[in-house]
Amino acid sequence: MPEVAVIMGSDSDLPVMKAAAEILEKFSVGFELKILSAHRTPKETAAYVEKAPGRGVEVFIAGAGGAAHLPGVIAAYTILPVIGVPVKGSLEGLDALLSIVQMPPGIPVASVGINSVKNAALLAVEILALGDKNLSRRLAAYRKEMKKEVLARSGRLSGAGYKKYLEAMKK
Amino acid sequence: MPEVAVIMGSDSDLPVMKAAAEILEKFSVGFELKILSAHRTPKETAAYVEKAPGRGVEVFIAGAGGAAHLPGVIAAYTILPVIGVPVKGSLEGLDALLSIVQMPPGIPVASVGINSVKNAALLAVEILALGDKNLSRRLAAYRKEMKKEVLARSGRLSGAGYKKYLEAMKK
Amino acid sequence: MPEVAVIMGSDSDLPVMKAAAEILEKFSVGFELKILSAHRTPKETAAYVEKAPGRGVEVFIAGAGGAAHLPGVIAAYTILPVIGVPVKGSLEGLDALLSIVQMPPGIPVASVGINSVKNAALLAVEILALGDKNLSRRLAAYRKEMKKEVLARSGRLSGAGYKKYLEAMKK
Amino acid sequence: MPEVAVIMGSDSDLPVMKAAAEILEKFSVGFELKILSAHRTPKETAAYVEKAPGRGVEVFIAGAGGAAHLPGVIAAYTILPVIGVPVKGSLEGLDALLSIVQMPPGIPVASVGINSVKNAALLAVEILALGDKNLSRRLAAYRKEMKKEVLARSGRLSGAGYKKYLEAMKK
Amino acid sequence: MPEVAVIMGSDSDLPVMKAAAEILEKFSVGFELKILSAHRTPKETAAYVEKAPGRGVEVFIAGAGGAAHLPGVIAAYTILPVIGVPVKGSLEGLDALLSIVQMPPGIPVASVGINSVKNAALLAVEILALGDKNLSRRLAAYRKEMKKEVLARSGRLSGAGYKKYLEAMKK
Amino acid sequence: MPEVAVIMGSDSDLPVMKAAAEILEKFSVGFELKILSAHRTPKETAAYVEKAPGRGVEVFIAGAGGAAHLPGVIAAYTILPVIGVPVKGSLEGLDALLSIVQMPPGIPVASVGINSVKNAALLAVEILALGDKNLSRRLAAYRKEMKKEVLARSGRLSGAGYKKYLEAMKK
Amino acid sequence: MPEVAVIMGSDSDLPVMKAAAEILEKFSVGFELKILSAHRTPKETAAYVEKAPGRGVEVFIAGAGGAAHLPGVIAAYTILPVIGVPVKGSLEGLDALLSIVQMPPGIPVASVGINSVKNAALLAVEILALGDKNLSRRLAAYRKEMKKEVLARSGRLSGAGYKKYLEAMKK
Amino acid sequence: MPEVAVIMGSDSDLPVMKAAAEILEKFSVGFELKILSAHRTPKETAAYVEKAPGRGVEVFIAGAGGAAHLPGVIAAYTILPVIGVPVKGSLEGLDALLSIVQMPPGIPVASVGINSVKNAALLAVEILALGDKNLSRRLAAYRKEMKKEVLARSGRLSGAGYKKYLEAMKK
Repeated sequence: MPEVAVIMGSDSDLPVMKAAAEILEKFSVGFELKILSAHRTPKETAAYVEKAPGRGVEVFIAGAGGAAHLPGVIAAYTILPVIGVPVKGSLEGLDALLSIVQMPPGIPVASVGINSVKNAALLAVEILALGDKNLSRRLAAYRKEMKKEVLARSGRLSGAGYKKYLEAMKK
Repeated sequence: MPEVAVIMGSDSDLPVMKAAAEILEKFSVGFELKILSAHRTPKETAAYVEKAPGRGVEVFIAGAGGAAHLPGVIAAYTILPVIGVPVKGSLEGLDALLSIVQMPPGIPVASVGINSVKNAALLAVEILALGDKNLSRRLAAYRKEMKKEVLARSGRLSGAGYKKYLEAMKK
Repeated sequence: MPEVAVIMGSDSDLPVMKAAAEILEKFSVGFELKILSAHRTPKETAAYVEKAPGRGVEVFIAGAGGAAHLPGVIAAYTILPVIGVPVKGSLEGLDALLSIVQMPPGIPVASVGINSVKNAALLAVEILALGDKNLSRRLAAYRKEMKKEVLARSGRLSGAGYKKYLEAMKK
Repeated sequence: MPEVAVIMGSDSDLPVMKAAAEILEKFSVGFELKILSAHRTPKETAAYVEKAPGRGVEVFIAGAGGAAHLPGVIAAYTILPVIGVPVKGSLEGLDALLSIVQMPPGIPVASVGINSVKNAALLAVEILALGDKNLSRRLAAYRKEMKKEVLARSGRLSGAGYKKYLEAMKK
Repeated sequence: MPEVAVIMGSDSDLPVMKAAAEILEKFSVGFELKILSAHRTPKETAAYVEKAPGRGVEVFIAGAGGAAHLPGVIAAYTILPVIGVPVKGSLEGLDALLSIVQMPPGIPVASVGINSVKNAALLAVEILALGDKNLSRRLAAYRKEMKKEVLARSGRLSGAGYKKYLEAMKK
Repeated sequence: MPEVAVIMGSDSDLPVMKAAAEILEKFSVGFELKILSAHRTPKETAAYVEKAPGRGVEVFIAGAGGAAHLPGVIAAYTILPVIGVPVKGSLEGLDALLSIVQMPPGIPVASVGINSVKNAALLAVEILALGDKNLSRRLAAYRKEMKKEVLARSGRLSGAGYKKYLEAMKK
Repeated sequence: MPEVAVIMGSDSDLPVMKAAAEILEKFSVGFELKILSAHRTPKETAAYVEKAPGRGVEVFIAGAGGAAHLPGVIAAYTILPVIGVPVKGSLEGLDALLSIVQMPPGIPVASVGINSVKNAALLAVEILALGDKNLSRRLAAYRKEMKKEVLARSGRLSGAGYKKYLEAMKK
Repeated sequence: MPEVAVIMGSDSDLPVMKAAAEILEKFSVGFELKILSAHRTPKETAAYVEKAPGRGVEVFIAGAGGAAHLPGVIAAYTILPVIGVPVKGSLEGLDALLSIVQMPPGIPVASVGINSVKNAALLAVEILALGDKNLSRRLAAYRKEMKKEVLARSGRLSGAGYKKYLEAMKK
């Protein structure tokens, strides 16, 4: 059963949005990917969102570019948390960011950074982990892993010197 | 019968949006003013838009601030022309402008400038005038009137000199 | 007879502006393409605009980049609807957008998004469709087609899974 | 026991941040308000965040202006969801928005709009409602209430006409 | 005989644009002030610009806000130098600045800063001074005067200390 | 004898700044190209600027990127007209534009658009043409040539149709 | 003997720049305040900067608005550290920030935030403290004081509740 | 012993940050390069910063992109000067610049320009040179060298003409 619904307005966003799928798979969180447009399929989008809780969905992740209305439109039809991902297409993604984050009072959307699909998925995992100790443990382990990786790199940089490290990076 | 539907997301936009009513009254174009939110009343908005053509509406004017989804959401439910007015609330209105103007391919919105409600109404009149010679004549007369006013002011400025003209402006 | 005049300031805008021609052809709307500059051929531009209604033109589409004055200059000479397309050249197209959309009160221009030529043409079709039921039907059909396409892709994505879908996209 | 920790970098943010308290009280969600600075009290902030889960905290709301590091610094010390509120102080709040929303991969922050404290609190309520059916019902009721209010205003506007409505607004 | 034509699109720009008149009077440079709009009086603007050289005009100063087309439209009708002044009205004047400064290749406009009317007039004086040694001497004297004033203030600040200087400023 | 001094802060700006040389050569206006930095060679820059009038220089063109101080620093040492060219290097050239155009009252710089070196040179020619009827005639002829070129292209576009015209452009 | 030279381009910056004097007095660091303009007194500025080390100056603080060249021009004449303060005047201070911070390679300026004069002075103190243990101790104590103040306020907020705290703030 | 600690949030910043190492080597200033993240290794970062003075560090250089918290977080744990380098990753580096430069009062960070790692290192050298006459002499020599290089290029440009110079640049 999908706990997270990952929605994008167009399949041209899929190369960016796939990172959400990868993170959710890594954490064994059920999800489904949908192409639904706030403007081209407004009724289908509304219908999908309203039925989603009945199918187990607890969190929405929605990515869109330009006048990125999708996360806000989803939020209009649900009281589940909606995470918006501004997808860079024009104006360095500033249009998408502002269209997503500047929601009017009453209907919140949780925005992550431009193209930050990975963080959108991690935020969904954090939210789900509130009710799932196992998931919470996996998140903590993931953080530890990241920390270890940073420190390992710093150690290798100290050991090798920056010139050799840069050469190794190119390989 | 309303030919133009003027919609705003919140009554806090009314002091700005009323200028549309004033222009439409001046041109004797039927209109109705509605408060409908893309996020707080999504279904009522959709229903209103879908029924509007049956009641005579030919053009929509929609004003909103921040993540201004209203014009785009209206456009999703109609093939009538939708004119969007970015209402300044935050970020000098840049967020509203980008949220309105950067629509994805397939579903156009006609954006006017930030808080340019008067121009939104005039654009609606221009569109309606394509099928109404009387309206077209009134538009042409309106333009002439504006021109005369500019030239009259320029004449007064030349006559009085800038110092006296400025004093007169303050009165 | 051309119903839509598509004007650009320089032939360097043609690779972007041609999308208007393609849409108008698709809808069997008569149009003509002109290169006319607000700055290099101001009189010829004015003369063309003033004579256009006599030749059947009902809507103008004008694209320009940088200090994009062309749509506003056209609007100064006509009471027909003028649709402006900000063409991206510098500053991500923000200069063109603001030069087009921020028109002073009295002379409206309908701006679409940066490089959104397709939407400019669809907006012109929407305007013309107010007086042409046939065109209106074709617009409605076009919307349906778009919707079907989005849903078909979403179906294929669900069916194939995102990895296979992405592979198929690359082909 | 506090379920939500509302943290601000300076008491000068309190007039804005108090809206979070008001929403949380309305939904009977336990919370505590803290003044903790990412830069002036970094250790106390870290210590507070690390101990917070043990005291019942499930969601953080952090507001800050300028180089708004507070939400990101909190997120560095917890795997609980962190909601960031960009507080407008300079540059129309754009600096705070970008400092909060553009987090690096791995450590998410959920950003709401500039000064959108109310939405930050509602987002926290949405997250908590995933594990609390009562809260979920109250959220749904709140949405209904908002919808009714919008429609009531639209009705009053239709009834009174915009001139009388505007006069009534001033009172 | 006017050597400088100072043109503005609307008399609402006069409180800003009058500084040009004050500088030109100070340097005894003949000028005339006109209200002419690129959009509301396009033909009168064109006619005025084309006749101006015959009446002695050598430099144009044009101020406008928003989609500030006036300087560019003037430049389209003359080979005399055109100085553009972006007048702040919306978006902190950024729209006017970009509309003025980002002219296409072939038709230059000399932009000064936002609301920098004084500098526009001084630039006109610098240009005229190339052919007028007397004017050149007055410009050099003006610069010296400015320098003396700065140094005098610095001296007073050193003498009085910043606290007393600030008190004196308030008086 | 050089009438125009074309100065750039670094030879990395030469590929952009060379367009000034080409225009000035086309108009047979004497010029010299110099690499002088406001920051790395401040004294040599000041000395050069102060001596330039004695060598015949009447107009300065200065190009710089980033914190583009060069035009303003030159203007501080001369009462001759200084034309600034913002060279795009970072932030799409916005930093250079603002650093050049936003000069304080008293010391004007005439800014052209980002990378608009050609227009900087044409502006210099317009200024010099005030005292040189021959140059003035050449400028008028140049404008006519531009106009003819635009109209010729528009004619070819009408004749060939946009598809063939685009194909011809690629060749 | 002045260790820090605090320079501003105009006495209109003094109400902002005085905060530097207050901090330097608090830390008993010798300083002098000067009004010197990069554009109106370029030679006097250069001369002052070159002589400053001989009079004991070790750090420069320079504040300016708009095309804020002062810090960069000072840096051109010294190898002492130069701290630049963007003073907000137009465009929310973004022009001043970019004009100060985007220096070309080779001549650094240390920028603080818009109007962050206090931080400029603290940065100067940090730099001087590298060679002055006493000053270093005072800085550490200042930090402790700030921390205590933040925690005291947080305590008062917890104790009084946000409503009473807000009331107390108004008094 | 390292006098300068050069810290970056991720090894992906190393290709940019290495320029700091090159400058510090050129001036024979001891330094060490570390990968430490404000968000992924907050405690290790804090611990490193607190111990750094004991190991000889006198200045920190920290580079980061996006929501660039690293320099500010370092500054929270030290009273040594912290130099921040905004690394361009998204939004042309504007997000990183604002996240670094707009620090709250009390905790300064010295920002250099976007990707201006070289200037960050030179600023560190300037600071260290206050207590090291030898270093000061080397800095003065470096400046002289830069000046000579600029003048040499200007000479070559004058000698060869711009066409040959450009050809030579391509080789």
